[in-house]
Amino acid sequence: MRQPVHGGNLVWAAALAGCSLEAILDFSASISPLGPPESAIAAIYSQVSNLKHYPDPEYSELKLALGRFHQLPYEWILPGNGSAELLTLAGKELGKLSATTLITPAFGDYYRTLTAENAKILEFPLSGEWGVGSGEWGVGSVGRNSPLSPASSGLLLNNPHNPTGKLFSREEILPYLQEYALVVVDEAFMDFVPPDAEQSLIGVVQEYPNLVVLRSLTKFYSLPGLRLGYAIAHPDRLSLWQTWRDPWPVNTLAAAAAMAAIQDQEFQKLTWKWLAPAREQLFQGLASIPGLQPLESAANFLLVKSQRSSLQLQQKLLQHHQILIRDCLSFKELGDRYFRVAVRSDSDNQRLLTALSSTLTNDN
Amino acid sequence: MRQPVHGGNLVWAAALAGCSLEAILDFSASISPLGPPESAIAAIYSQVSNLKHYPDPEYSELKLALGRFHQLPYEWILPGNGSAELLTLAGKELGKLSATTLITPAFGDYYRTLTAENAKILEFPLSGEWGVGSGEWGVGSVGRNSPLSPASSGLLLNNPHNPTGKLFSREEILPYLQEYALVVVDEAFMDFVPPDAEQSLIGVVQEYPNLVVLRSLTKFYSLPGLRLGYAIAHPDRLSLWQTWRDPWPVNTLAAAAAMAAIQDQEFQKLTWKWLAPAREQLFQGLASIPGLQPLESAANFLLVKSQRSSLQLQQKLLQHHQILIRDCLSFKELGDRYFRVAVRSDSDNQRLLTALSSTLTNDN
Repeated sequence: MRQPVHGGNLVWAAALAGCSLEAILDFSASISPLGPPESAIAAIYSQVSNLKHYPDPEYSELKLALGRFHQLPYEWILPGNGSAELLTLAGKELGKLSATTLITPAFGDYYRTLTAENAKILEFPLSGEWGVGSGEWGVGSVGRNSPLSPASSGLLLNNPHNPTGKLFSREEILPYLQEYALVVVDEAFMDFVPPDAEQSLIGVVQEYPNLVVLRSLTKFYSLPGLRLGYAIAHPDRLSLWQTWRDPWPVNTLAAAAAMAAIQDQEFQKLTWKWLAPAREQLFQGLASIPGLQPLESAANFLLVKSQRSSLQLQQKLLQHHQILIRDCLSFKELGDRYFRVAVRSDSDNQRLLTALSSTLTNDN
Repeated sequence: MRQPVHGGNLVWAAALAGCSLEAILDFSASISPLGPPESAIAAIYSQVSNLKHYPDPEYSELKLALGRFHQLPYEWILPGNGSAELLTLAGKELGKLSATTLITPAFGDYYRTLTAENAKILEFPLSGEWGVGSGEWGVGSVGRNSPLSPASSGLLLNNPHNPTGKLFSREEILPYLQEYALVVVDEAFMDFVPPDAEQSLIGVVQEYPNLVVLRSLTKFYSLPGLRLGYAIAHPDRLSLWQTWRDPWPVNTLAAAAAMAAIQDQEFQKLTWKWLAPAREQLFQGLASIPGLQPLESAANFLLVKSQRSSLQLQQKLLQHHQILIRDCLSFKELGDRYFRVAVRSDSDNQRLLTALSSTLTNDN
């Protein structure tokens, strides 16, 4: 059985582990362990009887709710079938430019969507040395290193960065909005950063017609099976995107769940309260295992450098512990010496640490 | 408030009628009044707890189930976020050809997707005279009327045809598979035609690598809010399409509902048993109203020629009867003298006939 394109493929993992899908402890998908919020589930149930109607093709209610959430007029918002669909639309736009710069290692689907549109890809590595605490993380020289004029090209990055978890400051990114024809910032994990620390560019989107921000409701609210994300950008751009896709991309249940979830401040606060100490504890636990070096992260996952083959580690964890970690083969700069794990509940994290420790010790 | 792009927009209708969305009797969306089947609803409920996982990006189970349903290997099937998403992918492929012939009047979204891909559109009218029983319905001369070589161009049609309801025979379409580089047959309404009369090209898809069949589960199973359709075509083509879109277009609940629905033979038989007499009764009722001429249809809707303005009729039906019919302004060949109505339950159909009759009589 060939390996799936994404760590979230539990079918593959369960087959390898010889257990049911439900028995797999999944650290590969960076999904919050706290959700889905009850408010979102209730909204889903309340709308099942409305599935016999088409969704409102304008998604007016949803756009209004998201607009209120972000203090933006609703024309600046375009909901999509997961942020993945909106990334594909962004790719179509980037493909029209002379080139697109990616901060690498970059999420594999960035390459997929750019290649599908015959976009020229320029790679700019986050750091020359993938060591912990190298002090070289940053995008300070992206523009200057690009062989083509930024004025006719695009920049696609995520913030916090996946898979490193690095959070770029708003100030680090703003200069590129002056330089590049189009800047697409994928903020799929930004909502995990508490309000007093977040670095979203949504607040400046009305000042920059060349800025697109992508957001997901999948990860923070634990609803990847439902598909919901949205783009925030100039209304003219979003109207154009709308003509590129079908009229009803967002299903009725996803729209309802989204409206409930973004209003669930209790769930949001609970998540922020949970994440920081859980991540710190997992970080310390990983750092204390010989041969493993986790990287500091602002998101709900940790990238870990490993002295052993991550693929072998992944297989052993599956076979002996029914635990799935995310290998980093789809990030070609990382290869077999890195893996990524989601931050989960304290007891799940402890189970991972024990399994990793025992697997690496038994190998010695 | 501007008019929506699609008759299914109940928000617009309810505002005009001055009532709640639920109070609108919707004849504009061609959705079966019998569903959703209980089997599909049960499948949806059973999967809500799995929304915290990503869908299987291969959709293996779903493809296997659809493959069994159509007696095809599962590689020949690509599920999508409604057949609308797959139409967009087909449009991308058609856009690469020298031109695409549409049988007109054509579904508005065909123009949207072809225009988005800068495709050259050739229009071939179904009939020169939009009269009832003109005897001129057919596509017999499409190829010969096209100004460009069919060998380098595409053909996009639906069968049964929307909005006329005309069913082309398999034999009418097969010759075009010899002539055109790519033939896309949108069979969104084919499942309404009973097995002994259906004219699907799915049975010959393995013989024609230049054939794409699009199917919907939205209309027959009354689940337009959930979004599920699929394409049937050569595996190489579907693999290419897969690279053009994001990895998880079909939500978990839609996949589950689809698998349950296609196995629900009882629901399918009930639908076929209901449709023919209900449509005939509605047809006769419409034909007996002075000024209205319905067209014979193989689908779950009827196109009606009207001596009065259909837009005015639509407004009066909304304001006085809270009934929504589908105007045909988006079909530019039809304009204001046609409207389309879904076949609904006997009592709903009777309510429509009474309202139409009273509206047209009071105008005299």
